[in-house]
Amino acid sequence: MSMRHSQDASEVRLARTYLSAVAEPPAPALAAFVARHGPVRAAELVRAGEVPEIVEKETIARRDRDRVVAHLSAAAAVGARLVTPEDAEWPAAQCLAFELAGHRHLPAPIALWVRGEARLDEMVERSVAIVGSRAATGYGGRVAHTLALGVAGAGFTVVSGAAFGIDAAAHRGALAADGRTIAVLACGIERAYPMAHDRLLRHIARTGLVVSEYPPGTAPARHRFLVRNRIIAGLAGGTVVVEAGWRSGSRRTASDAGLLGRPLMAVPGPVTSAMSVGCHRLLREPGTVAVTRPEEVIEAVGRIGVDLAPGLAEGGGPRRITDGLSDAGQRVHESLSWSAASDPDQVSMESGLPVELVRVALPELVRNGLAERTGNGWRRCPRLG
Amino acid sequence: MSMRHSQDASEVRLARTYLSAVAEPPAPALAAFVARHGPVRAAELVRAGEVPEIVEKETIARRDRDRVVAHLSAAAAVGARLVTPEDAEWPAAQCLAFELAGHRHLPAPIALWVRGEARLDEMVERSVAIVGSRAATGYGGRVAHTLALGVAGAGFTVVSGAAFGIDAAAHRGALAADGRTIAVLACGIERAYPMAHDRLLRHIARTGLVVSEYPPGTAPARHRFLVRNRIIAGLAGGTVVVEAGWRSGSRRTASDAGLLGRPLMAVPGPVTSAMSVGCHRLLREPGTVAVTRPEEVIEAVGRIGVDLAPGLAEGGGPRRITDGLSDAGQRVHESLSWSAASDPDQVSMESGLPVELVRVALPELVRNGLAERTGNGWRRCPRLG
Repeated sequence: MSMRHSQDASEVRLARTYLSAVAEPPAPALAAFVARHGPVRAAELVRAGEVPEIVEKETIARRDRDRVVAHLSAAAAVGARLVTPEDAEWPAAQCLAFELAGHRHLPAPIALWVRGEARLDEMVERSVAIVGSRAATGYGGRVAHTLALGVAGAGFTVVSGAAFGIDAAAHRGALAADGRTIAVLACGIERAYPMAHDRLLRHIARTGLVVSEYPPGTAPARHRFLVRNRIIAGLAGGTVVVEAGWRSGSRRTASDAGLLGRPLMAVPGPVTSAMSVGCHRLLREPGTVAVTRPEEVIEAVGRIGVDLAPGLAEGGGPRRITDGLSDAGQRVHESLSWSAASDPDQVSMESGLPVELVRVALPELVRNGLAERTGNGWRRCPRLG
Repeated sequence: MSMRHSQDASEVRLARTYLSAVAEPPAPALAAFVARHGPVRAAELVRAGEVPEIVEKETIARRDRDRVVAHLSAAAAVGARLVTPEDAEWPAAQCLAFELAGHRHLPAPIALWVRGEARLDEMVERSVAIVGSRAATGYGGRVAHTLALGVAGAGFTVVSGAAFGIDAAAHRGALAADGRTIAVLACGIERAYPMAHDRLLRHIARTGLVVSEYPPGTAPARHRFLVRNRIIAGLAGGTVVVEAGWRSGSRRTASDAGLLGRPLMAVPGPVTSAMSVGCHRLLREPGTVAVTRPEEVIEAVGRIGVDLAPGLAEGGGPRRITDGLSDAGQRVHESLSWSAASDPDQVSMESGLPVELVRVALPELVRNGLAERTGNGWRRCPRLG
């Protein structure tokens, strides 16, 4: 029985390996076909060409090319595994969102190639995607690093795409916090892309996860980056766009996050910066939240009522010496002169307050060191205010 | 009859002059009392002290001090007039919003002192307030100037508070466009405050309007700036906050604009700038619109469907050479190599597209100069992409 079960499991795994390579993602018809028939039967039917026309269109180019063993051994060679919906670590809740969205371009992945020791489902449970332009400015890079450092330090996993610019700054910020980060690639799991991030990707694989929907051997291509972005948006509990041009791939991640029901955040920047134009465009669309600090990101993706961002006022907001006074006290204080003394009638006239109220407020000011009595009236204390 | 009418009008004007000085704004009880009894009767009752306790509290300090003649002649000396709800140029629609808001701290002004030749109601018909911190950064000042220049150039009046920083940049931007601007003061209409803006205020009075709710002789005081802000928010068709600290008077203008049902806008800035913290705080509140260009401000305050901001894409957004291609064309283009030629089967395998679709897409690429046929297949054109 246990033998039979493990045979089944291995059969399912081989079928998923075949199916994950037979169609170029996103392959919504194949995804629906696999959901209906189960992976083993679906793989048989695809191989045999006994599929509806829309599935055939997605699979005919590669259906006869069986690279299952090659893909599994290429993955094993870099310490990667295939994670399938049948595995305990499959991020089921996240992938359910793809089905709920029901959007043609947003099918759930058929399986995910994963490199790293952590469990995928645990890694994404509290997570946030931090993405943005490859051509980031110094400002954008610093903000991405700061946000990632803060959210990773608070225990959130930072999900990004390992690209130059914002993505790399986000991964590095998470690593700098000794936090957790996931790089989602748009190419085979065995590749380092971009090449210059070879060390960064190794570091991420050691402490977090590198993930790809694409089978080993897949080359990076522009349309794959856009398709990959839905995996970033889907795995993370929310997406922050740090910098983006007017037409930016980050807009696609943002749009996917919205369709998947995830909070979408954008970082403001100088309106004079071309790299913030895409963020401001997002901020002008309904539902996008402006975020400027890690606390605000956590508030958006965190648990309601638990992860509320504290205001700045208590922390460092400037206080005025008259803050604790009554309204009348503040108005009387404003009406007093620094140099010449005023009597209560003059203060009443100047402030428009009844003289009785002025007579109450003046001692309040004296008690607070904000006014002093002189021979012929009251005046402001020169030192304090 | 005409004699009697002009006597009435002058009687009303004298009553409003008295009432506008007898209480320190905002005086919601007095405003309601004047609305109920009319200005002439209300002034008589206030002078006689025959008023409800809440009105007495607002008026007792100044009710015996009759400065009507002094105020009218001080105003006349600087070419200012009192504009009352009985005058044709009273901005009735704007002031109705104060009544509709029904907020205790937002009574409509009892009258307005106005300096300048333009009609107040016409000036505010299409208008926008541009306000912000006195301690503006160079960035904020430039953005305020640019926004004001753009909206004033499009025929909108720029309303602001004549303060240092953002306010002054907004007024100057409007003047630079030969546009119209209104300065709303928190002191007597005959004063130049701040003193350094004496020339600016004269310039504004010559081409636009200087406005104050306060009678001549009133000194600027902190609480008056906050109270004055409701006049800025109320007169303008919408309010833009360009820069503001965490605790800023501009927040009060913004809050007033919201209560008065006017669109509220904020300009994003670097999240690292203390002078943008207040704007980002506003942007995180529901209903605030992020604006980065004059066109976006006009869209928010302008007529629906007429003043829509054009996108940037047509103007200057970067285009890709593959933009006009079909989806298949783009995927095939990505799959082609620069150096080695591929046959349609290889392209089909790499792209995951059926070979028939590849055979259609390749000539499309050739027609567009994006691919070329070589002896043994197709490759990307090296020059173009």
